[in-house]
Amino acid sequence: MEKQEIQKNFFIPMPVVLVGTQVQGRANFMAVGWCTRVNGNPPMIACGINNNHATPEGIAATGTFSVNIPSSALMEKTDYCGMVSGRTTDKSRVFDVFYGTLKTAPMIRECPVTLECRLVQAVLLPTHTLFIGEIAGAYADNSVIKDGKPDVPAIDPLLLTMPDNRYWRLGRHAGDAWSAGKSLKSS
Amino acid sequence: MEKQEIQKNFFIPMPVVLVGTQVQGRANFMAVGWCTRVNGNPPMIACGINNNHATPEGIAATGTFSVNIPSSALMEKTDYCGMVSGRTTDKSRVFDVFYGTLKTAPMIRECPVTLECRLVQAVLLPTHTLFIGEIAGAYADNSVIKDGKPDVPAIDPLLLTMPDNRYWRLGRHAGDAWSAGKSLKSS
Repeated sequence: MEKQEIQKNFFIPMPVVLVGTQVQGRANFMAVGWCTRVNGNPPMIACGINNNHATPEGIAATGTFSVNIPSSALMEKTDYCGMVSGRTTDKSRVFDVFYGTLKTAPMIRECPVTLECRLVQAVLLPTHTLFIGEIAGAYADNSVIKDGKPDVPAIDPLLLTMPDNRYWRLGRHAGDAWSAGKSLKSS
Repeated sequence: MEKQEIQKNFFIPMPVVLVGTQVQGRANFMAVGWCTRVNGNPPMIACGINNNHATPEGIAATGTFSVNIPSSALMEKTDYCGMVSGRTTDKSRVFDVFYGTLKTAPMIRECPVTLECRLVQAVLLPTHTLFIGEIAGAYADNSVIKDGKPDVPAIDPLLLTMPDNRYWRLGRHAGDAWSAGKSLKSS
């Protein structure tokens, strides 16, 4: 296939999450497109957040944050939380808020899955900081649990691509991991 | 909505990438489900990789690695690269390999988008290491470029969910970012 060099600022398609913190004493939620699990045991997750946002101050203030997984039905509210700053806008009433064992990481009742995290490390990079948190509690709606586990199609997550700035739903099942490639293993 | 506490080891749906390194002097590729952009300018990307794998040694050896975005058509080969170790299996011939300006980060010609990265920082965590790389070069197939930019539906990325271990294609367009939430902004 013929290749061409493209701009280095390439974005891979990512799930959108809402990161919850306490900002100026109230619950605040920011839409974040850069989030991934980073450690297996204990379970840790990391979010890359622009240093200019209010959320880094919120994380620093309590040493905790939450990661909330919105369903596609929450697209408008999720997008709104990505457009307005917690410095100038009170976002504490956009969602119904609840707290878990950490007490300081606000979570969103409307989100099918929410995680509360204890900050482990903040990796300062030139324009962003990577906040690594240990998952201290995980909560799911009863309605998305199948066979005792969260069911991804029921969660109906929202994916984001940039720079086209489009949201997508999860598509069709393509195959099974640790299985689809078995035929290529030499016997 | 009624909530229940679930296992803390929750995985958010993620794109699958193939991380390329030099292992034992040959090109090696590993399927990685934990990968995200982490810095805006300069563009950086990070991958969380289990410390027991061969790939961390490969990254340490050259200070470089590649991130290759497979299309769903490459599911079998991608899955295979996640099932067998570069320590015991020569994966250098699974794909057609090419190199960019870094010379030491093998990239996959069959992947619609490939990134070559210079290691910036390795964040050691209990079971995994987060390898943060600056994107030194980005390459795309001519066939996935629309209006001068990579087109995500043309790339047709592969998403992975765990612990159900299923691959998914990108679904339908749900809405536009920095737009869908405008109606919630107070005038």
